[in-house]
Amino acid sequence: DIDEIESVEDPLTCVRKFVHAATNKCVMYVLEIGDCLGSTVFSPIKADVTGNITKIKNVYETNPTKFKTLQLILEGEKEQYGTEWPNVGATLALMWLKRGLKFIQVMLQSIADGERDESNPNFIRVNATKAYELTLKKYHSWFVQRLFTVAVYAAPSKSDFMKALSKGREVKEEECVEKIRQFLVNFTVTIDAIYEMYTKMNAELDYKV
Amino acid sequence: DIDEIESVEDPLTCVRKFVHAATNKCVMYVLEIGDCLGSTVFSPIKADVTGNITKIKNVYETNPTKFKTLQLILEGEKEQYGTEWPNVGATLALMWLKRGLKFIQVMLQSIADGERDESNPNFIRVNATKAYELTLKKYHSWFVQRLFTVAVYAAPSKSDFMKALSKGREVKEEECVEKIRQFLVNFTVTIDAIYEMYTKMNAELDYKV
Ligand SMILES: CCCCCCCCCCCCC/C=C/[C@@H](O)[C@H](CO[C@@H]1O[C@H](CO)[C@H](O)[C@H](OS(=O)(=O)O)[C@H]1O)NC(=O)CCCCCCCCCCC
Ligand SMILES: CCCCCCCCCCCCC/C=C/[C@@H](O)[C@H](CO[C@@H]1O[C@H](CO)[C@H](O)[C@H](OS(=O)(=O)O)[C@H]1O)NC(=O)CCCCCCCCCCC
Repeated sequence: DIDEIESVEDPLTCVRKFVHAATNKCVMYVLEIGDCLGSTVFSPIKADVTGNITKIKNVYETNPTKFKTLQLILEGEKEQYGTEWPNVGATLALMWLKRGLKFIQVMLQSIADGERDESNPNFIRVNATKAYELTLKKYHSWFVQRLFTVAVYAAPSKSDFMKALSKGREVKEEECVEKIRQFLVNFTVTIDAIYEMYTKMNAELDYKV
Repeated sequence: DIDEIESVEDPLTCVRKFVHAATNKCVMYVLEIGDCLGSTVFSPIKADVTGNITKIKNVYETNPTKFKTLQLILEGEKEQYGTEWPNVGATLALMWLKRGLKFIQVMLQSIADGERDESNPNFIRVNATKAYELTLKKYHSWFVQRLFTVAVYAAPSKSDFMKALSKGREVKEEECVEKIRQFLVNFTVTIDAIYEMYTKMNAELDYKV
C-alpha cells in the first residue's frame, strides 16, 4: 500500500521525516517503473536518486542537531564550502533529488487529474512526458533527452501501475487514485518548499548533464 | 598512446595478464566514447564493465595459486556452486565482460579494415552498429536495443576518436590504424580463446537483459 506520510508542520523542519517521504513506496515504485524489463535497465536512475538520498543522510548523521533541517544543511554547507557552494555536498545532492521527486509528483498528479491520451487511455506516457518537460528536461542534453524518449516507452500500462501500487491486488482505479491524491498532499507541499528554499538561497544551478 | 600488451603464450594462462589487457587504454577509451557528453551518460556502461573486472580480480585474489588462470576459475566455481553455476560469481562476470570486450574488438577491427559509411566517412556509427549486432544485441531486450540505437549517435567522429587514442596529438589516420592493428593481434586471440572456453565448458547463457 501507499505509505502515509506523517503530516509535517514545517516541511523543511526535519531531515529524518524528509528522508522518510523520499523513500515512500509510492516514490520507490516509480523508480522501478520498468520492473518488468528487469531492474537492470532502470537501475542507473534508481542508483542516482538513492545516491542523492544517502549523501543527504550521511551529512545529516555527522551532526543531527546542527543539521536538523534541510535549511540548516544548506546554510552550514554554504559557510563550510565558500565559492564551491552550491555545487557540492548535500546541497548538490538535494538539488538533483528535488528534480527527480518533482518528476514523480507531477506525473502522479497528472494521473490523478485524469489527464490521458484519448487514443491510448491505459498508457501513462503522456503523464510521464508532461512531468519530464516540466522538471528534468531543461537539465538534460539533447542526448539524454532522446534516451528519455525511448525510456518512456518502457513505462507500464496504467492498470499495471495501479496494481503495483496496491501490492499486486486488483483494485478499482478510483480507489487507487484516491490514495495517490492523499499521498500527494504532503509530498507536494514538501517539494514546493524545497524549490522555494533553493530560489531564496540562490542555490539553484542550471547546467545540463 | 595505445598500451602495448605483453604477448601471452596461452591467453587463458594468467588472470593478471588478462586483467591488464582488459584495462588497456584502448579499451578504456572506447568505454568513455561519449566523453564530450559528460561521463555521466556513459558511466553506467563503464560501471558495468569495470564491475565485471573487479569481480574477477576479487575471486582471483582470494587464491592466486588456485585461480591462476581463467579456466581454473571457471572449473573451481563449477565445483563450488553446483546447479547455480554458471549464473554466478566470476563465471557470470566474465560471461558479460567478454561480450563487452568483443564489442570493442569488432568495432576496432571494422575501423582498421576501413569499413565506413561512404556518405559519412568520418563517423564510426557503422562500425559500432556492426559490432553491436555481432556481439551484444542478442542479449538485449528490444528496449535496451533501442537505447543502444540512441547511444550510438553520441559516438565521436573518427578523427576525434583517433586523436583521443593518441593522447590528444594530431596523428595521421594511417599511423593510428597501425597501432590499433597491433593492439588487436593479442586482444583478439585472448577474446576468442575465452569464447571457446565458454562453449567447451557449456558455460554460456543466453538470457536477455
Ligand atoms: C548498451 C546500450 C545502452 C546505452 C545507454 C546508456 C545511457 C545511460 C544513461 C543513464 C542516465 C541515468 C540518469 C542519471 C542522470 C544523472 O546524470 C543526472 C545528474 O546526476 C547528478 O549529477 C551531479 C553532478 O553533476 C551529482 O553527481 C549528483 O549526485 S550527488 O548525490 O553526488 O550530488 C547526481 O545526482 N540525474 C538526473 O537527471 C536525475 C534523474 C532522476 C529521474 C527520476 C525518475 C524518472 C523515472 C523515469 C521513468 C521513465
Ligand atoms: C532520464 C532518462 C534516461 C533513461 C535511460 C535509462 C536507461 C539506462 C540503461 C543503461 C544500460 C547500461 C548497460 C548495462 C547493461 C547490463 O544490464 C548488461 C548485463 O549486465 C550483467 O548482468 C548480470 C546479471 O544479469 C550481472 O549483474 C553482471 O555483473 S556481475 O559482474 O555481477 O556478474 C552484469 O555485467 N551488460 C551489458 O550489456 C554489457 C554492456 C557492455 C557495453 C560495452 C561497450 C559499449 C560501448 C557503447 C558505445 C556506443
